[in-house]
Amino acid sequence: MDASSNSETSQDTLYDEIKSFFDSAPPLKDGPDISRKLKEFIGKNSQSKGGVAGSRIVCVTSGGTTVPLERRCVRYIDNFSSGHRGAASTEYFLKAGYSVIFLNRRGTCQPFCRSLPQDPLLECFEVSKELNVQVRQSHSEVVKRAIGEHCAAVEEGLLLKIPFTTIFEYLQILQLIGMSMKDHGRCAMFYLAAAVSDFYVPWQSMVEHKIQSASGPLDMRLVQAPKMLSVLRKNWAPTAFCISFKLETDSEILLAKADMALKRYNMHAVVANELLTRKEEVIVVTSNEKISVRRGKTEAEADADVESPLIKLLVEKHSAYIGDSDS
Amino acid sequence: MDASSNSETSQDTLYDEIKSFFDSAPPLKDGPDISRKLKEFIGKNSQSKGGVAGSRIVCVTSGGTTVPLERRCVRYIDNFSSGHRGAASTEYFLKAGYSVIFLNRRGTCQPFCRSLPQDPLLECFEVSKELNVQVRQSHSEVVKRAIGEHCAAVEEGLLLKIPFTTIFEYLQILQLIGMSMKDHGRCAMFYLAAAVSDFYVPWQSMVEHKIQSASGPLDMRLVQAPKMLSVLRKNWAPTAFCISFKLETDSEILLAKADMALKRYNMHAVVANELLTRKEEVIVVTSNEKISVRRGKTEAEADADVESPLIKLLVEKHSAYIGDSDS
Repeated sequence: MDASSNSETSQDTLYDEIKSFFDSAPPLKDGPDISRKLKEFIGKNSQSKGGVAGSRIVCVTSGGTTVPLERRCVRYIDNFSSGHRGAASTEYFLKAGYSVIFLNRRGTCQPFCRSLPQDPLLECFEVSKELNVQVRQSHSEVVKRAIGEHCAAVEEGLLLKIPFTTIFEYLQILQLIGMSMKDHGRCAMFYLAAAVSDFYVPWQSMVEHKIQSASGPLDMRLVQAPKMLSVLRKNWAPTAFCISFKLETDSEILLAKADMALKRYNMHAVVANELLTRKEEVIVVTSNEKISVRRGKTEAEADADVESPLIKLLVEKHSAYIGDSDS
Repeated sequence: MDASSNSETSQDTLYDEIKSFFDSAPPLKDGPDISRKLKEFIGKNSQSKGGVAGSRIVCVTSGGTTVPLERRCVRYIDNFSSGHRGAASTEYFLKAGYSVIFLNRRGTCQPFCRSLPQDPLLECFEVSKELNVQVRQSHSEVVKRAIGEHCAAVEEGLLLKIPFTTIFEYLQILQLIGMSMKDHGRCAMFYLAAAVSDFYVPWQSMVEHKIQSASGPLDMRLVQAPKMLSVLRKNWAPTAFCISFKLETDSEILLAKADMALKRYNMHAVVANELLTRKEEVIVVTSNEKISVRRGKTEAEADADVESPLIKLLVEKHSAYIGDSDS
């Protein structure tokens, strides 16, 4: 068996795995509604708004996916992710003139809301003596910015937010977005910052009821989630500029794993980050270079977030990618 | 071996399990700070405030615990729970004159905030033409109630909120609360509505780094979490009135399991509820009766929540329990 037929076989296996994943997934609620919103959003943002970004649209994925362990879900496996990276990146993409589809885990960090306390309603507001609800003086600036900039982006039709919870919802919606972006050619970008589970329990093999704890330890077997990045690149949106993320806690294996992901899924860039230093530094890995991107040392707004120089770099790479097709 | 030595042996096993759980748990952050707040709160609320409730204090636990799967936690098992039951119950306990220690999962539903939309800041507020942040007319009443009543309860010192995330934090803090309430005698109540994991991965046997997905399925073994309810009743707060919850998705086994929990942990009552109907009906199981509690059919505020008649019933049972010691 030579290398090519070997790779064909693994390709077939992948398609089988993916078919079985989608076949066994519970049907997506609101699927038609999401499709309609996507069509409207992409249609509206397909005309150039001028500026460097023209008619570019990026899909930013953000937050972790859950893996249900029971059909009537009481327990699930979750991936830790505050959604901070995705929310911050969305702000910088909007600043750079992109329209953004923000595919985000319910309840995680929202764009322009990063500086708010955990429970903004109860911490930022008070009821005055005249029984009016008012923002506390100490939080007035962050609250005004959060509500003002967030509402502006949504109302101007530049930001479309779509929430997910389970890995089934996430991949089903990502497929819808991928296929809706197909006609958007090289101006489309995928920035896949969500923490997607590597393992899942197929819906068919899942127990109906809550797992009982009557006796002894609980043994669980999870199977690998199919590698959807390959299909996104190959079938769903083959001309889009694709960036994925690799998070590790062990710096020793990080760059090797990022390199592997780049080749295996044919990504245009992989952003490598380590759990403990992810807010300070990331490394952008492409086929011919590894570029360290660090946040500024000052708290000056321009580079206080590592996402500021990161998005700047990726926008340049995206421009070069679009330019390549013109030459 | 007779029954009594058999039960002694299982008692010893339980204490061993509990010791090993706490010994292996990561140290609780803010432990001294939490202890200080508890002491202050219980001290202040130990004088009778008048009314039926006198100096009663209830610890309401709410939301699900997480079980980390890696020490540098990227993945964890979570228990589904919005925290709605705990938040609603806290409101009704406050109304009944109790002081409430609200031990709640970070980010879950807060008292007086149940009617708010998912993202209240972005959905309930707007920035006016004069650039002032203001509440949208459509949400003005729920927002005013949420902020007003919540702040009043906290500021008057009747509501102490303590957040947790992991099962380690939850049980460590519950122990602190139990031991702080010891001197509060029969006026103390535990209302254990949190969805606590039945299984966990002992910290010592947990891998340091993120589990790799390189090859094949993931097999996991979780051990049973020690039954802390026994210890709460026996050692931490032996005179407190204790109510636990039993949630099942399968109605066939629900009452039998509630009965078992009542006897096994020596609870004063177990609230049995089924996942799909839990907002409509619960069954209060005690040693001599099973009482069905249903919410009212009208949307009239008095009984629109099943927690309204439920707390009323439990307050009566608590009164009887306190009265028993006087006779």
